[in-house]
Amino acid sequence: MSDQDRHVLEANAAFYTALINSDYQAMESLWSHNSAVAVIHPGWPPLHGREAVMDSWRRILAGPSTSAMYCSNVKSYVMDKVAFVICSECFPEGELVATNIFVQEDGMWKIVHHQGGSLQSLFDDDAPERIH
Amino acid sequence: MSDQDRHVLEANAAFYTALINSDYQAMESLWSHNSAVAVIHPGWPPLHGREAVMDSWRRILAGPSTSAMYCSNVKSYVMDKVAFVICSECFPEGELVATNIFVQEDGMWKIVHHQGGSLQSLFDDDAPERIH
Repeated sequence: MSDQDRHVLEANAAFYTALINSDYQAMESLWSHNSAVAVIHPGWPPLHGREAVMDSWRRILAGPSTSAMYCSNVKSYVMDKVAFVICSECFPEGELVATNIFVQEDGMWKIVHHQGGSLQSLFDDDAPERIH
Repeated sequence: MSDQDRHVLEANAAFYTALINSDYQAMESLWSHNSAVAVIHPGWPPLHGREAVMDSWRRILAGPSTSAMYCSNVKSYVMDKVAFVICSECFPEGELVATNIFVQEDGMWKIVHHQGGSLQSLFDDDAPERIH
């Protein structure tokens, strides 16, 4: 594993630690201040811009604890100064799958986008051929 | 809108045109050959690597037509040579939300990752505060 991959995975782990600890200050520091950011939370419409994104985290982290969740099946993809991570988010209620995008700023990997979604299909039979 | 944003959005539109037309050759040409790629289709586990990703498209595009879908609410985020697009995927059966990541190769924007997911929450009450 390259140093770049390792650092991206550390940033990804810090994101989930902030979530598990309901730590808004940590979450705020992990999101980019220099690039435009967005987020897609399950059950929400996409949110665009730092104000909307951070407001969503403020609400989520002030809500019921997510301390019982953990992240697994983590894989990083680094493309120079931008990277993305795919991982599973395991909650007591079920599993989500996430894409997290990071940008390198002043030597630190900062989050610019998170999409968390269920593994469910739109279609009744859930056959993979039915839908991309 | 910058030229970069316009070109990324054209690549994003080409992706959906290939899907709508069940055009595997177009789809194959739109995905990066130089960078590692991944995909998260709703109802599937994440797929890693070009062989698995293109095999999934081969199966999907050989399946029932998705010609009635369309893409809307499109927004691009360009970070030098990497970009991502957030958009809605509107099917007769319902709406999905997607993140598509692109990398610039030889002046062309190529896809390296797609996550399509439902807007559903894991939780019964679907309250945004319940889950990120």
